[in-house]
Amino acid sequence: MGILLTIAYDGTNYCGWQEQDNGISICGTLKATLAAVLDCPFGLTGASRTDAGVHALGQRAHLVPAAALKIPLNRLPQVLNSALPKDIAIRAAEAVPDDFHPIWDAKSKTYSYKIHNEPHRNPLIWPYSAFIPSKLDLAAMQEAAQHFVGEHDFAAFCAAGGSAKTTIRKIYFLNIIANGGLLEIRVNGNGFLYNMVRIIAGTLVDVGLGKIKPEDIPDIIRTKKRIKAGKTMPAKGLTLLEIFYA
Amino acid sequence: MGILLTIAYDGTNYCGWQEQDNGISICGTLKATLAAVLDCPFGLTGASRTDAGVHALGQRAHLVPAAALKIPLNRLPQVLNSALPKDIAIRAAEAVPDDFHPIWDAKSKTYSYKIHNEPHRNPLIWPYSAFIPSKLDLAAMQEAAQHFVGEHDFAAFCAAGGSAKTTIRKIYFLNIIANGGLLEIRVNGNGFLYNMVRIIAGTLVDVGLGKIKPEDIPDIIRTKKRIKAGKTMPAKGLTLLEIFYA
Repeated sequence: MGILLTIAYDGTNYCGWQEQDNGISICGTLKATLAAVLDCPFGLTGASRTDAGVHALGQRAHLVPAAALKIPLNRLPQVLNSALPKDIAIRAAEAVPDDFHPIWDAKSKTYSYKIHNEPHRNPLIWPYSAFIPSKLDLAAMQEAAQHFVGEHDFAAFCAAGGSAKTTIRKIYFLNIIANGGLLEIRVNGNGFLYNMVRIIAGTLVDVGLGKIKPEDIPDIIRTKKRIKAGKTMPAKGLTLLEIFYA
Repeated sequence: MGILLTIAYDGTNYCGWQEQDNGISICGTLKATLAAVLDCPFGLTGASRTDAGVHALGQRAHLVPAAALKIPLNRLPQVLNSALPKDIAIRAAEAVPDDFHPIWDAKSKTYSYKIHNEPHRNPLIWPYSAFIPSKLDLAAMQEAAQHFVGEHDFAAFCAAGGSAKTTIRKIYFLNIIANGGLLEIRVNGNGFLYNMVRIIAGTLVDVGLGKIKPEDIPDIIRTKKRIKAGKTMPAKGLTLLEIFYA
């Protein structure tokens, strides 16, 4: 029986989800904890490779133990959490069918990108947001956001180093919610290219600063040229909120 | 001319506001930065001695430079922030009259105490909240909260080691706001005893767990005995939100 874990983490002190030779990863930390807690070999496959410094509330990973677990499934999160460091937590564990695949079966993902837009920084949200002291034009950003919705070739919003076969992706929604000085971009799509959300966020910031006009977004998408889009925003503003399987 | 600074900090890595022999303090860090940035001697008096691990969005400190500053007042926050560590920030700087006193002139203070009440912990709010996995009865807590409002002798809600001449304080409001699994206690009063907000929070948690009845709060206050109230909640859930001078 396979188990689907829902995982939250503060990515500040990690080199990302994926195991690396020179850094402590979320996946590696989770595997070490599972090895200490479970009494059998297991496989673990993550649903999304979050980068160094990126956070998650709803990362998923597929755990396949070689034997039936002695710990009841509803107790598993608590048992693992008591052994995990405080910046990683299991939020849920559920049984999934034998033919389940955490990557191929994902229907869509939602990311949040937070921008703190006040004159002076706020240390309590600093680790989870990008700080932009210059006043951003929210209405222009919201107008620009709608041009990303739909199926497009997002080659202009993809960093070098990605391994995707195609750069066509479908965005189902992209909303910008303002709460005082905190702007939150929430984007849901059927998949995201390497650094895609952070480059979209950087492009929207350029719109907010008046460097790019909202109506220029379709042209930027059409060029398929990375250099036409905005800069890649810092990892710490990005949180993987949810992965949907149905 | 005196200057009133508004200061925000993530208290996680500090021994509190006050300078200590064996630890890095907020006040000490701020003084070191001021010494590097200003070109004259100065005095600095904080409005509130926050404990080790306590956070602030609206701490205040009275800066009295020995000579007129060369940096314009409206530029001072930005200049200091570029030299301060990322977990401390100046949010505002304003001129105050010569007879201003940051402690005696304070009319009231607002504190926030955050409780994360879900079955499993959330690493993104862990540094700024206390984690209580058992389901809390919010309605009972809200009923209990109202018994704290008004002028009372809060001796039962004061840790040993305080230096206050009287334990009588007036609470103007005490609200509990629920936002999903995050409960926030917001309390405003004319002054707070040593650990008073954290002990009130601990008593409200005991009400939420059914260990104390809401209607028992007036009796607990009347005993003036620390042992009758709930435990002191962890520092990390507490944030000094605002100090009012008018």
